[in-house]
Amino acid sequence: MRELLRVAPGGTVDLGAVDPGSTPGLPGPEVTGERRKDWARRQVELVGAELGRQQEMLFADAQARAAGGPAGGAGHRVLLVLQAMDCGGKDGTIKRVAGAMNPLGLHIRSFGPPTPEELRHDFLWRIRRALPPPGYVGVFNRSHYEDVLVARVDSLVPERVWQARYDEINAFEREQAAAGVTLVKVMLHISYAEQGRRLLERLSDPRKHWKYNPSDVDARARWADYQAAYAEAMGRCGTDAAPWHVVPADRKWYRDWAVAHLLRETFDTLDLGYPPAGFDVRRERERLLGTEGNAAGERQVNDR
Amino acid sequence: MRELLRVAPGGTVDLGAVDPGSTPGLPGPEVTGERRKDWARRQVELVGAELGRQQEMLFADAQARAAGGPAGGAGHRVLLVLQAMDCGGKDGTIKRVAGAMNPLGLHIRSFGPPTPEELRHDFLWRIRRALPPPGYVGVFNRSHYEDVLVARVDSLVPERVWQARYDEINAFEREQAAAGVTLVKVMLHISYAEQGRRLLERLSDPRKHWKYNPSDVDARARWADYQAAYAEAMGRCGTDAAPWHVVPADRKWYRDWAVAHLLRETFDTLDLGYPPAGFDVRRERERLLGTEGNAAGERQVNDR
Repeated sequence: MRELLRVAPGGTVDLGAVDPGSTPGLPGPEVTGERRKDWARRQVELVGAELGRQQEMLFADAQARAAGGPAGGAGHRVLLVLQAMDCGGKDGTIKRVAGAMNPLGLHIRSFGPPTPEELRHDFLWRIRRALPPPGYVGVFNRSHYEDVLVARVDSLVPERVWQARYDEINAFEREQAAAGVTLVKVMLHISYAEQGRRLLERLSDPRKHWKYNPSDVDARARWADYQAAYAEAMGRCGTDAAPWHVVPADRKWYRDWAVAHLLRETFDTLDLGYPPAGFDVRRERERLLGTEGNAAGERQVNDR
Repeated sequence: MRELLRVAPGGTVDLGAVDPGSTPGLPGPEVTGERRKDWARRQVELVGAELGRQQEMLFADAQARAAGGPAGGAGHRVLLVLQAMDCGGKDGTIKRVAGAMNPLGLHIRSFGPPTPEELRHDFLWRIRRALPPPGYVGVFNRSHYEDVLVARVDSLVPERVWQARYDEINAFEREQAAAGVTLVKVMLHISYAEQGRRLLERLSDPRKHWKYNPSDVDARARWADYQAAYAEAMGRCGTDAAPWHVVPADRKWYRDWAVAHLLRETFDTLDLGYPPAGFDVRRERERLLGTEGNAAGERQVNDR
């Protein structure tokens, strides 16, 4: 999936050529043997369990490293960057895919409009503060790419400022990759029609009103501008160090299936394992067994 | 469960009287109709789905509030404080119970030995920084109670210092409760024998070595001191504003079932609902439908 959905480095992205309703890489009915939707949903659970195991190894390695013991890996962390138009499914993807992992090892950060404090710093300041520590799987719900998306479309900064940001982003991401952060950048690509349906759904259900913001319709009115900004951002910042992927997202079950696979394939490249013990196992076993006759302890024993 | 497992306010806690292998509140086989373990595990999933719905309402309310719209609730947040002896099951509880909720709305913080920077501040400094924002479900994996547990047992500070902390904790928790933080404090209560089994398991399985720390055996040798420190902490800080609960935790499936119920009952007291729309729904629908004929948009439409 990584190769299949990846944006060619240095190229221009033709988003119009990617059908948001398509399902690239999904096996046909001869493999799924049932409704593809049901099959994909179950696969997400299976892959999710595997993601949980990989996440544990990532975490274990960082813990061993922090404890000063010999560590097996390289202080890795994984960072999933999710970008999408409103209603593109970022929250749902986090719920389903990140939700399959142990929440203790997740580091999820959402980026809204910058606060006054954030505006006093350069645009990557708040991003740096939100990076996952070693051993964690980070998820960015929106990201520094907003600074070349909404900032460009809404002219929040002069053109020379956002034009300079593509290179700044590439330098930043190269630096992070060198520090052990494996970036997985994903645009959840929905169609204009699907966005309309989902916004209408939010307006029609009082339980979903809180997800609706009148500015969503303003952004929708600038759909073509946003698509162009996405295309340029992914084209200019789709690097070998930090590739971009376009995931067709009109079908939620495909979207989750594809993102889960992107993550699993990313973990596979890390070649993770459990770290060796940072202590003498035999000696610790003896110490532990020595406590069994401990009178102070035994007084407290409550049998099952 | 909240009443059943709750530590009586102001009382002394007799931990020896609580069997860590017991299952208070769990229905008998005439209700479960199958192995209690299997039944409890499925219940955790069902209750977990309900916790997810409650969490969404909590989150929605905070979002509406932040957007300046009318909010339904009172800016609530929930904070689960987990304490236990090593191997008591804090991580497992977070994985199973918090893992049932949407990770986007979770705010999990683990507390290890204080860093040099943390030591330069009072013991509640790092705790205050780790509190969940409104709308979030916070989980403390260890907490400020370590400052009257390990700090006391290992004499990390003079007695007059830790003795003063019980009142400081009560004042802090009262202040948080008044600010809308609903605290659910839980001690996962395992037996000395069960801890021994679990430590041995960690030593016997290379995939679990990373969870083992030689200092665990040192703490085990002071079991009685720790139990006494727990008993006093819960007795002195089990207040109406922030009650303590003792969850028998030798059986993992009971532990998860009990904590899930404690959280659900806590949510029930908040009487949550979805916030009313902070905009004119009819007008927004008209604006949205007005975008359907938008030429710039339609050019981009990709049908399913």
